[in-house]
Amino acid sequence: MAFATKATIASFGGKLFKLSHSSSTTGTPMAVNLFVPPSALSSSKKAPVLIYLSGLTCSPENCSEKGFFQHRASQLGLAVVYPDTSPRGLDLPGEKDSWDFGEGAGFYVNATQQPWSKGYKMDEYITNELPSTLFSDAEFGKYLDADKVSITGHSMGGHGALTLYLKNEGKYKSVSAFAPICNPSKCPWGEKAFSGYFGAENKEEWKKNDATELIKTWGGKDARMLIDVGTGDNFYKQGQLLPENLEAAVKEAGVKGVDVRYQKDYDHSYYFMASFSDEHVDHAAKYLGLL
Amino acid sequence: MAFATKATIASFGGKLFKLSHSSSTTGTPMAVNLFVPPSALSSSKKAPVLIYLSGLTCSPENCSEKGFFQHRASQLGLAVVYPDTSPRGLDLPGEKDSWDFGEGAGFYVNATQQPWSKGYKMDEYITNELPSTLFSDAEFGKYLDADKVSITGHSMGGHGALTLYLKNEGKYKSVSAFAPICNPSKCPWGEKAFSGYFGAENKEEWKKNDATELIKTWGGKDARMLIDVGTGDNFYKQGQLLPENLEAAVKEAGVKGVDVRYQKDYDHSYYFMASFSDEHVDHAAKYLGLL
Repeated sequence: MAFATKATIASFGGKLFKLSHSSSTTGTPMAVNLFVPPSALSSSKKAPVLIYLSGLTCSPENCSEKGFFQHRASQLGLAVVYPDTSPRGLDLPGEKDSWDFGEGAGFYVNATQQPWSKGYKMDEYITNELPSTLFSDAEFGKYLDADKVSITGHSMGGHGALTLYLKNEGKYKSVSAFAPICNPSKCPWGEKAFSGYFGAENKEEWKKNDATELIKTWGGKDARMLIDVGTGDNFYKQGQLLPENLEAAVKEAGVKGVDVRYQKDYDHSYYFMASFSDEHVDHAAKYLGLL
Repeated sequence: MAFATKATIASFGGKLFKLSHSSSTTGTPMAVNLFVPPSALSSSKKAPVLIYLSGLTCSPENCSEKGFFQHRASQLGLAVVYPDTSPRGLDLPGEKDSWDFGEGAGFYVNATQQPWSKGYKMDEYITNELPSTLFSDAEFGKYLDADKVSITGHSMGGHGALTLYLKNEGKYKSVSAFAPICNPSKCPWGEKAFSGYFGAENKEEWKKNDATELIKTWGGKDARMLIDVGTGDNFYKQGQLLPENLEAAVKEAGVKGVDVRYQKDYDHSYYFMASFSDEHVDHAAKYLGLL
């Protein structure tokens, strides 16, 4: 077994497994939560998978408890994977100095700058190591349909979902995001993170990890992309999210299938996410053959 | 305005108001959260009210964020009130020494023993002061139908819901509870709390605040009572909840309308509650004229 099971929790008729495994990509133990819906537990019918990427400071726990994905995922027969947001325990200098850089803030990129290039390879971890380990696992692989995977995320995790989706055409059946950082090259959070992980001058690497830049040259026809942003979100108001920049790039590039919705009064919190997670599960389910 | 509004949060189409008011019953400021469903915000149609009583250590915040009552309450047009679990800030000797007695652990009783009798009057606060203040409030009263109120709760709050319901026949239209302490006179949590709040010898007062005792002499015909208990709940296994004692008393007294369900594998957490909160809202809604 690649995974140690820290807890098994009954949730909405299914089971939430709190897991840990040793990652060769990050060089650390990595925590991950897995929700298996009742349909997959009680039969040999494998469940399609939704990967949920968390925002700054979060662990697999926050959304498992407060995001409400299990509610609709259980009804439709969808598994949900909640990875962590960075390696933990590398003990790099400055790793814990900021809440928006380093531990809890891996930004789903492969860092090229020392010392972060040591283990801050969350792109590689989410794209390759975690799914291949999970799907081939003797205990948990049997529940999961490796050919039907979608991705979603919140804030920094929304940036992660959008960029990993755009970078890997065909790998995910759809993408959605809650209050994503849409143009990290142009906002304070992204500038700080990319300067640290790639270097301030390495703007080519910045572009390769920025949804607004990526969509300009994206080769796909139908983006199958749903984005919700709350109009009461202070980070949106402060220019950290910049969904308008993504919308402009989508329009200029002529990409179809992008639905950006502005939800009146909603903030940046899990209250916002929980209010729309049913709809994001439905969005994924449509492309995963469940609706 | 009796209430200071600390935050207004969009949630499931409605608004969650984080409020605080000065309570003459407890002699302290009291925090309370109020969810107003979209139907009451957008029209003059007042919403029936579900009062949710939290468990040990909790504040109004926990269930507002993790219980997911808002999901179904929003659909049906139900308001939800989340009170606190005790006075906070009385600065009584020993008030913060235990997680299961004193602050965060008021047990929804009117303490008779010094020093707790000073402000630990959560029965009085929940039964009278809070609803009368809320329903007559210039800002929030207009949303709430004071004639249609039900009550629910979790663990210590389940004990609170059951006892306040049984003590006040006709005041609440229905009652439900998640993993309630059903027979506090006979379990360690209850023995500690009642010894402290009433004195170890004052067994008459214990009986008046114990659902299993109260139901033996209850005068009603149809209890409209739904209880869920998880079979994987460690507190259940340790004999803190004792739903079987309540069931035996119900049977002996010939009370109708009590539905105690044992939910396989579920634990004592918000994962458990969230999984069944839709059904508890439906239970209340049936008796509040919403279903």
